[in-house]
Amino acid sequence: MSWERKNIAAMQGYISGEQPDDPSILKLNTNENPYPPAPAIEEMLQRFSSEVLRQYPPPNADEFREIAATLHDVESGNIIATRGGDELLRLMITTFVDPGEMIGTTQPTYSLYPVLAQIQNCPITHVPLTADWKPPESFSDQLNDADVKLTLLVNPNAPSGVLVEVEQIEQIARSLNGILLLDEAYVDFADNSYDAIPLIEELDNLVILRTLSKAYSLAGLRLGYGIGPEHLIRPMIEKTRDSYNLDWISQKIASIALEEQGYANQTWLRVIQERDALRTELLKLGFLVPNSQTNFLLATVPKTHTAESIYVELKQRNILVRFFDQVGLSDKLRITIGTAEQNHKLITELSSILISQ
Amino acid sequence: MSWERKNIAAMQGYISGEQPDDPSILKLNTNENPYPPAPAIEEMLQRFSSEVLRQYPPPNADEFREIAATLHDVESGNIIATRGGDELLRLMITTFVDPGEMIGTTQPTYSLYPVLAQIQNCPITHVPLTADWKPPESFSDQLNDADVKLTLLVNPNAPSGVLVEVEQIEQIARSLNGILLLDEAYVDFADNSYDAIPLIEELDNLVILRTLSKAYSLAGLRLGYGIGPEHLIRPMIEKTRDSYNLDWISQKIASIALEEQGYANQTWLRVIQERDALRTELLKLGFLVPNSQTNFLLATVPKTHTAESIYVELKQRNILVRFFDQVGLSDKLRITIGTAEQNHKLITELSSILISQ
Repeated sequence: MSWERKNIAAMQGYISGEQPDDPSILKLNTNENPYPPAPAIEEMLQRFSSEVLRQYPPPNADEFREIAATLHDVESGNIIATRGGDELLRLMITTFVDPGEMIGTTQPTYSLYPVLAQIQNCPITHVPLTADWKPPESFSDQLNDADVKLTLLVNPNAPSGVLVEVEQIEQIARSLNGILLLDEAYVDFADNSYDAIPLIEELDNLVILRTLSKAYSLAGLRLGYGIGPEHLIRPMIEKTRDSYNLDWISQKIASIALEEQGYANQTWLRVIQERDALRTELLKLGFLVPNSQTNFLLATVPKTHTAESIYVELKQRNILVRFFDQVGLSDKLRITIGTAEQNHKLITELSSILISQ
Repeated sequence: MSWERKNIAAMQGYISGEQPDDPSILKLNTNENPYPPAPAIEEMLQRFSSEVLRQYPPPNADEFREIAATLHDVESGNIIATRGGDELLRLMITTFVDPGEMIGTTQPTYSLYPVLAQIQNCPITHVPLTADWKPPESFSDQLNDADVKLTLLVNPNAPSGVLVEVEQIEQIARSLNGILLLDEAYVDFADNSYDAIPLIEELDNLVILRTLSKAYSLAGLRLGYGIGPEHLIRPMIEKTRDSYNLDWISQKIASIALEEQGYANQTWLRVIQERDALRTELLKLGFLVPNSQTNFLLATVPKTHTAESIYVELKQRNILVRFFDQVGLSDKLRITIGTAEQNHKLITELSSILISQ
């Protein structure tokens, strides 16, 4: 006999990218930032008094929320601090979507979304993206017809890296009958002209997700936050969040990371430069690569090869990239932007693989 | 219009004990350990390379699980590492209890349990404890009659501090039709003769909760774990847990804390000595105090006073204790064990309050 709920027994868990222990392996598979976090973080840890850990942490991470609010020119009541973006996604479902209600997203999309829907025992509607990786004009209508309560939309898109303009985001949010969770995990690598945050003052159904995992080189910290109108943020803070969801050290590190904007901006510029250079090299090798606004590229492999074979060959050469064995993605590789040296190594190995066959 | 689910809109969130910023306030209200965490933790932080944070942490906290498994003489497959005990409680409900199914517990109990039940939209059955703070003989029968799927039992009991013997725990688990979550948050302060962990090898419906918050002086870290049979632990690890639920630094600190058993044991002995001394002093002042096996005492105030008035007077004197305005508890105060000096200060102020009125 299984004790699990039927929906849990029937589901598969989320499968994260490979995380090898071997530091000689070049990891271009999980969209981590190739540059280290701000030096001020290590300096704080060296001075940290562990005596502080004896007591419970500030329950609502108010200092961090103030800093995030100032950064984004909103009120701290518009901010919830979460254990990675993942916790915010879960809380949006727990708080606003009853079991059995419909969740909406695109096809393809971030592979965690269907897993979270299954945990809440919710069906999910996938609306296919257009050939240029954008939601179709009928996106909101299709979701409204399916009676979708919560739509999860990642922008810039994963895994393509393509950015949808603010105007289309606003149009989607305005026409949806349900709530829109706009997952901006990668937005700091996008054009500066894009800024969806002012929309939260006009729209009552929009929450924006941010994370420190990529842009602040802190994937190992598990720190994200939500930005939205107070009537959506407050119930997650006061009711559905695990009490004391963020420990003392994470709160302190996250606050420093946001304050060190100059340092973070520098890493974004370097990633953007490397991304555009790597894209040029991949195009030269015969890959098709849409213009990315993130820290990764989605590369359709030359017709002479399969994506899976290149993934395997790269792995044998100690380079990990991401291969998704899914409809629409099985001829593509998702490649995280590394340092100039790392990207050079990737291109060298790719050239060798393409020539040798 | 509210976007919240009906059960969320209707509920109140968990209210944690007061966490004042002012370090001159004596906090005897949230059961924190009065002694600092193991010195090896601060030493590790001083040497910590923040470069590590760039990458995702080990997803399953395997090193910590190995250490915990060795400590408790079980397999690492019997251990799940969680963000405080709170995450384990939530995962037990998410994984094993459908919305609408019944959750069981005692009356009184840890005040978070009903909140978690409401979030999952589950009713809850409270079985009153006997006058000596133990589950009645008919405990399992009452819960089975109510068709309880998951029973949450804190042992030693909160807020009384009273320990139920292993034999009764085994009898309860064996006779329950559902799963028993045995919340041993305070067990390290109990008699050494108590050990429920061997039961997980015999029973297929028992999960034991442990936390580093109290016994390891790490309330600020948010680290707990579950011990149970693999068929109950595995679905929480592989399916319902947020991916990467534990950050790099927490995993490292938690591993050190468990390895430094000698240090932790020393703090437990000191807390136990102080607890018994404080109880003697409270009895002398006319309080009724059951024998506690935890790091707190539940003291019924002398009939000349109300518990609330003493709570307020102590607060005015910069001492926080916990007052629960609930049936069966409103004539009592829950007092966390402090250092000898802190307990002396409490007794001095209590004497003064009792005499002055």
